[in-house]
Amino acid sequence: MQDVRIDPWQIERVSPVDDFSETIFFVGNGNLGVRGFGAWAPKRTPQAHAVFRAGLFSEIKPGITDMVQLPDALTLRPAGEEPRQVSQSLDMRTGVLTHVWETERAALRMERLASMADGQLLVQRLTLTAKRAGVYTVEASADACVRNLPVHDDQTVAATELAQLLKLSHIGDNGMRLRTLAEGKPVELLWEIRTDREANRQACVEGETAMTTLTAELAQGESWTVEKRVRVLTGGETPRETADDPWSESARTWEALWRDCDLEVDADDSELQGALRYNIFQLLCNNAAEDRTVSIGARGLTHGRYKGNTFWDTEIFMLPFYLWERPEAARNLLLYRADRLEDARALAAKQNLNGARYPWMCADTGHEQCESWDIGLCEVHITADVAYAMRRYADVTGDKAFERDVAAPVYADTARYWLSRLTYEPAKDQYSSFFVKGPDEYCGATVNNTFTNYMARHNLRLALSAGKLNPEESKTFQAAQSRIPLLYDPARDLYLQDELLDRLEIPPFLKNGEEPSYKRYCFDRMQRYRVLKQADLVLLMTMFPQDFTPQQKRNVFDYYEPITLHDSTLSYGTHAQLALTLGLWEKAEDYLRKAVYLDLKDVMGNTGHEGVHMAALGAAWQAVVFGAVGLWSENGELRVQPMLPPSLHRICLWVRHRGERYKVEVTRNGGTALREE
Amino acid sequence: MQDVRIDPWQIERVSPVDDFSETIFFVGNGNLGVRGFGAWAPKRTPQAHAVFRAGLFSEIKPGITDMVQLPDALTLRPAGEEPRQVSQSLDMRTGVLTHVWETERAALRMERLASMADGQLLVQRLTLTAKRAGVYTVEASADACVRNLPVHDDQTVAATELAQLLKLSHIGDNGMRLRTLAEGKPVELLWEIRTDREANRQACVEGETAMTTLTAELAQGESWTVEKRVRVLTGGETPRETADDPWSESARTWEALWRDCDLEVDADDSELQGALRYNIFQLLCNNAAEDRTVSIGARGLTHGRYKGNTFWDTEIFMLPFYLWERPEAARNLLLYRADRLEDARALAAKQNLNGARYPWMCADTGHEQCESWDIGLCEVHITADVAYAMRRYADVTGDKAFERDVAAPVYADTARYWLSRLTYEPAKDQYSSFFVKGPDEYCGATVNNTFTNYMARHNLRLALSAGKLNPEESKTFQAAQSRIPLLYDPARDLYLQDELLDRLEIPPFLKNGEEPSYKRYCFDRMQRYRVLKQADLVLLMTMFPQDFTPQQKRNVFDYYEPITLHDSTLSYGTHAQLALTLGLWEKAEDYLRKAVYLDLKDVMGNTGHEGVHMAALGAAWQAVVFGAVGLWSENGELRVQPMLPPSLHRICLWVRHRGERYKVEVTRNGGTALREE
Repeated sequence: MQDVRIDPWQIERVSPVDDFSETIFFVGNGNLGVRGFGAWAPKRTPQAHAVFRAGLFSEIKPGITDMVQLPDALTLRPAGEEPRQVSQSLDMRTGVLTHVWETERAALRMERLASMADGQLLVQRLTLTAKRAGVYTVEASADACVRNLPVHDDQTVAATELAQLLKLSHIGDNGMRLRTLAEGKPVELLWEIRTDREANRQACVEGETAMTTLTAELAQGESWTVEKRVRVLTGGETPRETADDPWSESARTWEALWRDCDLEVDADDSELQGALRYNIFQLLCNNAAEDRTVSIGARGLTHGRYKGNTFWDTEIFMLPFYLWERPEAARNLLLYRADRLEDARALAAKQNLNGARYPWMCADTGHEQCESWDIGLCEVHITADVAYAMRRYADVTGDKAFERDVAAPVYADTARYWLSRLTYEPAKDQYSSFFVKGPDEYCGATVNNTFTNYMARHNLRLALSAGKLNPEESKTFQAAQSRIPLLYDPARDLYLQDELLDRLEIPPFLKNGEEPSYKRYCFDRMQRYRVLKQADLVLLMTMFPQDFTPQQKRNVFDYYEPITLHDSTLSYGTHAQLALTLGLWEKAEDYLRKAVYLDLKDVMGNTGHEGVHMAALGAAWQAVVFGAVGLWSENGELRVQPMLPPSLHRICLWVRHRGERYKVEVTRNGGTALREE
Repeated sequence: MQDVRIDPWQIERVSPVDDFSETIFFVGNGNLGVRGFGAWAPKRTPQAHAVFRAGLFSEIKPGITDMVQLPDALTLRPAGEEPRQVSQSLDMRTGVLTHVWETERAALRMERLASMADGQLLVQRLTLTAKRAGVYTVEASADACVRNLPVHDDQTVAATELAQLLKLSHIGDNGMRLRTLAEGKPVELLWEIRTDREANRQACVEGETAMTTLTAELAQGESWTVEKRVRVLTGGETPRETADDPWSESARTWEALWRDCDLEVDADDSELQGALRYNIFQLLCNNAAEDRTVSIGARGLTHGRYKGNTFWDTEIFMLPFYLWERPEAARNLLLYRADRLEDARALAAKQNLNGARYPWMCADTGHEQCESWDIGLCEVHITADVAYAMRRYADVTGDKAFERDVAAPVYADTARYWLSRLTYEPAKDQYSSFFVKGPDEYCGATVNNTFTNYMARHNLRLALSAGKLNPEESKTFQAAQSRIPLLYDPARDLYLQDELLDRLEIPPFLKNGEEPSYKRYCFDRMQRYRVLKQADLVLLMTMFPQDFTPQQKRNVFDYYEPITLHDSTLSYGTHAQLALTLGLWEKAEDYLRKAVYLDLKDVMGNTGHEGVHMAALGAAWQAVVFGAVGLWSENGELRVQPMLPPSLHRICLWVRHRGERYKVEVTRNGGTALREE
């Protein structure tokens, strides 16, 4: 639990700037992301002062890339006036991070902006107010020497080997040019240092560092503002013209964004409103809404964990937010997948399979980045997840051209993949999935995981409905889709996760009611325990709310929730959502808080050293909007079916549906979705 | 198919010295091994001129070691008289490799010895006979600059990164001292260069190379012999005194070895006798019979493939040879495992399991060296294989003290491991194995692999019989051992490999009778085909010949042999053995040749770049001795039950059984085992 003050539009923390602060005070504009380091401070670790550019990856070994950490050009040091601890506050309305502190001689205020109106622009501004008359110095530097610390897929392997991914070719007083070592991709940083009063200025370059020293004489009570505007250009981009006042320009863009994306709640806990806004804020900061060439990594631009790769997290957990709030952003995220269909075909062929197979981890190309075969080869549902997300987009937006031109070829080729990945068993007249993993990664490579089979069946049906199959294929796919087994026990009206889970042992820590001591267990041991890492069938019930009866949902929740360890941050929000739908208030309230406060209260204990959990943000939003508000669209029909738990009194948001804007408002007395002009 | 001439006591090849020659003309004494490179030749690759010392490993990354390639000090170059191709011959009676060639000026003969009487000693001897009068020069050099090329576990990953494992601390005219970089283990090479006539001698050290140049004037027809004796010392060993004539000394040791270990066959194919002797020769060359601190790697000392690690290959495929021919060597191989019981306990604990768990790959420590988890974590039968091998040793030798003092603690702790690794299923009242692989590595992580379960049950029974369990354990183990399921179809009287195999597809290349095109298929695809990589139940039938009826063996052979791809060299010999037992002559003759000629005829196409397949040598020996001769010992009873296929007329060998020496001889008319005085 961390000591963050959460106000409706602001979060604040008074502390030294540690890993946790660096993560939660991250600012970004979807194109660029900056961790919340102090601009005055030397790097605490090689990985501190991280700045990332969406989609900029470089090879660290054959076929495997890392998201490139860019040089930090934001350093702005008031010499002799550095703080030990600072008040750090993030204004979510404008996206500005402010550090405030005082020294014996001065009061200091340091502001940071990743301009939401200009994706190339970062700004750092220092305002120093003299408490005594005297000479004050500000050093503005840019350090081209930067290293990546690639994080291994396997969480038990510590990252220790630094990798140099960038090579400096030029550094001067106003900028630097670099290239990625492996590919020669150009990276350019241009900066401008502005001062609002006359100051002595000295510039020099030493080694790979460019330093400008400004000196000014201030009378007691006088203020001095130094601003550094840094423009980051990659891939030979043309620099945009910087606005006269980038702060106001960005604030106006944020204002429009909040008009679309805000979510108002009246709740018993005073922090909930601010925390929900924080989730939305991060979803906006980490999404390059207009850029179809990039997606969102599991930790967005907030950390290099998972090497910046995109997982199913984007399609299943984050996308619904964009879909309802910024459909053009959702469209671009799906185009990112459609643009990689050819790579998905190559991946299927490499695995001796037909059609197209999306990679478990995806960077700039569509080549598989996952190095652990049990996940990379077994967790095959990703391919159907992409098709599912495209269908959801088409349903909510009514974008028929997208479904016809973009989604249909994806539906067809992913369905072809499924038919070759499944095994036909003549004895049972069924198409079974062998050696697969569903969302619950604690099961071993299992047989007929129901989540996977359900998604595969859905994928085949999408292909059949989209009409891109030849007649013979259509016949085969039609016959196959109804023969993909969905394990179900009619006596208990209960769907079963897979063929093996119920044969495994209940672990001692659950049997004896002990504190779950699963952190002490290795994966090999865990895979033979009847426990789940995260929501599996519970998730399926939330993804297809119309396909299952309330009793079936309840039975799944009652059976699986007690043996779920929530070792993945994808789990809490989903459990909250289904618990809300079922009116299980106690569970719902508990899971909802774990989901909403996941990063701000460091629920998993890893927010600092892993970054913001993007999927969890999306899952928390879904819990509120699909669970408590009961928003849904099925075959183009908008539905609001509120299930407010005792602590929530009113929720209001604005959504897009089929080209219209709706104000959705729910209270204990019911809910409305009113079309706005 | 390679062009090797195979005589009863010699193999010969006239060719350039390529990878294949380097492998098959390997010589060793169990302590040291030298690939068959030409002593006159510069290195073709960093890995050419490989010399290995059994048990010398060094870390290449945390926890993972490679077998250290030692500097080559055997270079002996007749300057200007190098050959393009040479006659290479290996005399198996004496263990001497000879290279013979002629140039315009001279006839040359180069001999190499790894002394079987002095484990530290390698000797290289050049005899040059002048065809014209003149001055001749011989350069004897030693190159301390050596690199390893660690080979990845995954065969699809090419080895490309050289690793420096040794650091030179001193080099002079008569020797060099080095240390392993990671551990500082000392390595010392001492050499002596002898000439049988007066010669001018100049010595120098340049960089990391020590070179002695000898020059002599020869009349036409005169011969000159230069001999380099190299002593290799590791771990601070004391140098032994070199015999006056190490060649004779070693030959005498070989003579005694062959008296014990020879296998005489009268066969239709003239090469079979020599090829079988070659198999025995390699089993002797790669075994440090008197050293309990080392075992035998999958490629012995003939190549760095598999990083020199020991697998179950040693216990199940090679050990029977030593057991019947050199029981003291077998004992040391088992002590190697017993000495690592503490590490096996630590490995079990690391996997949150009880007792002791032997690693899939083992170097000098008992720490797991396998980096692919599907194999390292799933192929658990290794632990029972060790216990099985100890029981076989005790049965054949009658060594009660060994079983009581050494084996019993192993039986107990490995049994404890099994009870925690298996999962009790109350609904079926059985102890099932989940996520395991048997010998057939093409299956995925499966359920209730019968080979694994049978071995586990055998292991529990050994523990029960050895009396090291407490009463409660005894009760539990007794109840458990009979409840480990062995999948069996009574209608067909057929044991089944596991729960999943029969649900998988028959692959198209088998269905359509095509040439097996499995090389084109990735592992992920293979694991969902109903094919076997290698003998699985067929192997089990050979390991427990008394436990199954002839009809059950026949049914297993008929069902599994047609779907077995023999992509492992462990497979042919085992199939030959069971086919012989069953009198399936056509299959038996075919598999027997594939097994016996595996390396000499390069049946797998990888002998050159992977080294000699040690387990296949042992499997071929077992096929002849346990299959054709029908030798067996059960509860101390010696049995000979010949099953000679049409092409074999007589087999004769000498074995040790319960402290006695027997001459075993079989013909078409039956067989005898006569005790010798």
